[in-house]
Formats: sequence, structure tokens, C-alpha cells
Amino acid sequence: MDQKPTNTFNPSQHGIKESFRLTDYSDLRGWGCKVPQAVLTRLLEETNLDLSPNNTDNVKIGIGLDACLMPTRFENVSIIQTVDFFYPLIDDPYTMGQIACANVVSDLYAFGIYEIDKIQMILSICDQFSEHEVDVITPLIIKGFQDTGKAAGAFVVMQSATINPWCIIGGIATSVCSQKDYINPMNAQIGDVLVLTKPLGVQIACNVNRWRDNPAKWESVLNAISDEEANTLFDTAVQNMCRLNKNAAFLMHKYEAHAATDVTGFGILGHAENLVKFQEQNVKFVIHSLPFIKNVLSVAEAVNGKKKLLDGRAPETSGGLLICIPKDNADSFCKEIEEMDKSKAWVIGTVETGTKTVEIVNNVNIIES
Amino acid sequence: MDQKPTNTFNPSQHGIKESFRLTDYSDLRGWGCKVPQAVLTRLLEETNLDLSPNNTDNVKIGIGLDACLMPTRFENVSIIQTVDFFYPLIDDPYTMGQIACANVVSDLYAFGIYEIDKIQMILSICDQFSEHEVDVITPLIIKGFQDTGKAAGAFVVMQSATINPWCIIGGIATSVCSQKDYINPMNAQIGDVLVLTKPLGVQIACNVNRWRDNPAKWESVLNAISDEEANTLFDTAVQNMCRLNKNAAFLMHKYEAHAATDVTGFGILGHAENLVKFQEQNVKFVIHSLPFIKNVLSVAEAVNGKKKLLDGRAPETSGGLLICIPKDNADSFCKEIEEMDKSKAWVIGTVETGTKTVEIVNNVNIIES
Repeated sequence: MDQKPTNTFNPSQHGIKESFRLTDYSDLRGWGCKVPQAVLTRLLEETNLDLSPNNTDNVKIGIGLDACLMPTRFENVSIIQTVDFFYPLIDDPYTMGQIACANVVSDLYAFGIYEIDKIQMILSICDQFSEHEVDVITPLIIKGFQDTGKAAGAFVVMQSATINPWCIIGGIATSVCSQKDYINPMNAQIGDVLVLTKPLGVQIACNVNRWRDNPAKWESVLNAISDEEANTLFDTAVQNMCRLNKNAAFLMHKYEAHAATDVTGFGILGHAENLVKFQEQNVKFVIHSLPFIKNVLSVAEAVNGKKKLLDGRAPETSGGLLICIPKDNADSFCKEIEEMDKSKAWVIGTVETGTKTVEIVNNVNIIES
Repeated sequence: MDQKPTNTFNPSQHGIKESFRLTDYSDLRGWGCKVPQAVLTRLLEETNLDLSPNNTDNVKIGIGLDACLMPTRFENVSIIQTVDFFYPLIDDPYTMGQIACANVVSDLYAFGIYEIDKIQMILSICDQFSEHEVDVITPLIIKGFQDTGKAAGAFVVMQSATINPWCIIGGIATSVCSQKDYINPMNAQIGDVLVLTKPLGVQIACNVNRWRDNPAKWESVLNAISDEEANTLFDTAVQNMCRLNKNAAFLMHKYEAHAATDVTGFGILGHAENLVKFQEQNVKFVIHSLPFIKNVLSVAEAVNGKKKLLDGRAPETSGGLLICIPKDNADSFCKEIEEMDKSKAWVIGTVETGTKTVEIVNNVNIIES
């Protein structure tokens, strides 16, 4: 990427009031802005229309898995597309743009697509921003988004922007591909293992940083970890959110992955549950290990958030890929992605005979990274 | 289309308070939610990045023209895509869904694309809606959108929905196509004429309907036209906004159109100006006629909005196509589209030698339809 993620946006350096926080301009943040899946499914049922793409044999992926693959009028040419947008979850505008882009394209990487043709940016400018704030903040967000889109090798465009009470950042990622380019996420085999390519806990990590402005909450944080550890926790979360899952998508082909999803708003358990439902074989996923960003669990314990994390229900943003892969290939996959991404991946579970459920074992192995 | 547009949503029939108006749930409506083009261009300049798609020879269409065409890795396979979303501008949720869909796909029709592969719906539910309002309103919006998408022959999907202070409706329309499928909007020839396929004035027409709740404004309306005429005015506007520009796109090929754009938020003049800028030859557009929905001008005069309409600056939503077409083909084009759409099209101007400007002649010919 052209520029490293930064968490050091200083409003006053740009002539903006010191107290300016990008995350103040929405009541919901990245992970919490989605209409719950159950509500959405009910609303779609009420329309009595099959809006989900399950209505043709060629297109089986819809609600639950975030990307949608469909054939075109050209032989062996399919289009795969995903749309995602959300509200700021960190305060640095450039880095927020990077995260938003990485989060959008992640849905295609989960299909093993690593050549993305086009990313169209979606942006709404907050109607509460002053003109000067618009002039400072918006170009930084766009530049962050663009830089990450370039790193993905995609053509990035933005055609228009709207005005909205909350700042909205996101996009549409599209790949026009042939059958060899994608891995339909439905072929998990008994005996496969589950690999996860990023550690968990970004929601708490982002909250920790916001709590610097909240004396009571900040005291709770400092009861658990030091100021410096809090800094490192947040930086690690941001670096992980900015990192593209591109290499993981590339290696899915080399190591013959059978299915994958990316881990975002529904937490590791929610996305594992979505993935297992799409499998053709009668399998279950058994999760024996959960890797967390270092010190996330300590903070979570101090603010009563530990159970949600251990239950696999804590929302993630721009999380890793959860991949079903032949057992014999998993170690090589993890080793190679570690070399490419300079960041660890873990075998966190197994694929067993079952009824399309997900189980986190008692006394799950906690990994801190 | 499966169902006709309706303007008769009755909240109390659905157990919602009588005063519920969908258009109350945003401060900006369809036409007013866009960041002005000049501001956007400035913001993009500040990023010092060429985000517009003018940076390759194959992709010349970006800001200003709403769709973006780009080559893929497959020979003679291009992807053309547009994204658009806005806030409710009428109160009937089903019909609002229809209009939003027609407005999204219109950008592709302007390229002569009449086979649209996929429409992905974008929806944000207003955080002020009660749970019951969500349950009533949302499925109607989705159903309207879906029905119009089906009429367009597209595969419609919705993968997720978000929560936002204002209700957002829109989508992404995509066509994977070969060179014969599209008409690059840059080949206007001297001697061509300009054809417009829908009458102007939907902003005022929608306002008129909203003013029924505003006694002072409503009195002004009734000084100009009757209650029944106001009803007809609004109905005509709604029917035009719901109507797809699909037949116009189809006929653009048959009658060898050289360039086209759709008329939306920047008004007829703004979009004509965008279109003329993209022409390869040194041309100007001379507009000699302006067709309006019947009685729009009378109301506009009563509320001081006539100048904006006559200047071609009044925003439209889901407006018609403005098409540069050989003079000898124009009458046949208009006749055939009238038969197909049961609605008139007009020759409104000429393409002459010039410096890529647009001129509305003095004493422009006013047509009421």
C-alpha cells in the first residue's frame, strides 16, 4: 500500500476543532449498522418474493454470504459482486477509508477471487460537517479508500456523493470471472480443518480507543492494561482491518480450499453458521481455538464483554477469512500466508459429520496474538 | 409491470398513524441529496488523484455521466455499472420503490444498454420508524423495486440493509456486454437533432402533492390550478418517473443514435452540458423547445419557480433520455416510442457547430403535455 495506516489524525493541524471525532458523526458504528439477518429475512418473506439469489441453480449465494455470483450472457463468464457500506468506526479519516475498502473487497476474497476489476466508492458526507471539515475530511477518506483499492489491483471510481445525517463510507466491488477464478463456498469435506487468517476482537479494540474521551470507561481500561498496551491493542486492530485478504484468496487456490467466508458483523460464530448452512455435505464445524488480539480479553473482562467474545458473537469489521481446507495442506497454507502477510493464521477447528451446525468446544483454546 | 404505480398509500389501513408521510423522514428529497458536482470535483482534485475514469483510453465516462464502462480480462466483454441512491420523494412506499429502481437503471439505458444483468438493491431503514412501520413500509418499497427490476428483465438481489436517520433507497445496476450492446455517448454529429423522451417538471409536481399538508402553499396552488388538475399533475409525474427508459434504449440502436444521457438531478440544461462536454466533435446543442407536464408552469409561476424551469435547471428524478439522433430518423423514433410507451417524445433541439456549450433559445417553444 502507498501509505501505512495511521491513527494519528490531529484535527487542529487541519484547522478543525480539537474535539472533532469522526466517530461522533453517527450513532451506530461499523459493526452495528446492519438490520439483523432475522429481521431482514422476515421482511423479505413479507414481500412474498424470492429476493435471495437461491432461485436459480447457478446462483446459490445470497443473504448470509455477502457476495453474489451470477452467470452472464457470455459463455463461462460470471459476474461476482458485493456491496457494503457503514459508518466510521475510527477517527482517522485516511485510515477509515482504507478499512472501508478492505472490508468491501473482502467478500470477493472469500470466494477465492483475487483479481478484482472494479471498486465503485459510496460516500455520504455528514450534513453536520462545516464546509472546512468537508474539505479536510472527505479527500482523506477518499485517498485512503483509493490507495487500498489500488493495492487490491482494482480500478476505483467514484461517480457521486450524497449528503446524509451520518457519514457513510463503502462501495461495490465487482469481478468478471470464469469458473477457474472462484471457489464456490459449499464443498467443505469431512476431515478438513478450519483456518482463520486474522485475530478477533476489533470492536473492543476500537471502543478502547474511543474511551480515551470517557474518564469512567478509561479508568476501567487502565485497571486491566496500561496506556501503552491500549495503544498497541488499537494499532494492531487497525492494521488487521486495513490488511487485504488478497493473499489468503490467492493461497486458497494453491492449497485447494473447499469453502470460505469472511468474518465481519455477525462475529466468528455467526459467519461460521452461515457458511456451514451452504455446505452440500452433512457437516458440522467444531471450533477448538479462538485467536484474539493481545489484551482484548483482559479489557473485555473489565467492561463485561468477555462472554460475547468467547461465544464468538462479537462483531468484527474487515476480519479474516475462515477457510475450510484439507488437513494436510493447512500447515503449509498458514506458513506461506505468514510469510506473505507478516501476520499469523491459525488452525482453529475441524469439519466433522453433522447437521450443519457450529460448535465451540468447552474449554476452547485461547490464543493471544 | 406487475402493478401500476399508486399514489394512494393509506397509512391507517395498515395500522399506522394517519399523518405518516414517507417524505417526512429526510430533510432532503430525491433531487436535492447530491453533493454538487463542482464541490465533488474540487474534493477529488484535493486528493490529487484521478478518481474519474478518464485515466485510461478505454474508459472515458465518469463524473457527470452517471454510468461507467470498463473492459474486463475477457476479449470484447465490458462491464457497465451505475450506482444511485436517494431519499423518498413521494409518500407511497410501493411506488417509491418503483421510481428508485427506474432511476437506477436509467443510467445504463442512456448508453443504449437494454439488457441489464443485475440490480442490487440498497436500502437503509429510518431509525425513527416504529417496528410496525418497518414491517409495513419496507416490504412495500422492496416489492416496488423488485417489480420494476423484473420489468427491466434484470435479476434483483438484496443482500443486506442498514439503519440510518433517513430512509435511503437505491441500487447498483450492472450489465456485462460486448461492443455492439452499447452506444458510447460521444459521437453527436452536426445536423443531428435532440430528442427528449419524458416531459419536465417532476420536482414541482411532487412538491404540489406535499403542499396538500401545508395550507398556505396549498392556497397558492389552488390559485393557479384546480384540486383535480393538481391530482392529475402529480399522477402524470409519478407515471413518468416509474416508466423505464428501456424502449428508448432499444430504439437508440434501431435509429442509430449518436449519444444520450438521462435527465435527473442537474436538470435538462445541466445534463445537456455534461453530455456536450464529452463529444468528440466540436458541437453545441441548441434547445428550441421545452416540454413540460401539463399545468407545471402555472403552479411554478404561482410559487416563484418558473424561471428555474425555463432555465432548464429544475431537478428531475427518473427523467427521460436526451438523445442525439440523425435528423432523418427522429420522427420515426418519436413515433415508434410513442406506440411502445404510450407516451410522447419530442424533438427539442439541434446539434450545430460550436464549442461544447448548450444554448436554450430566447422565446423557447413551450410544450405542455
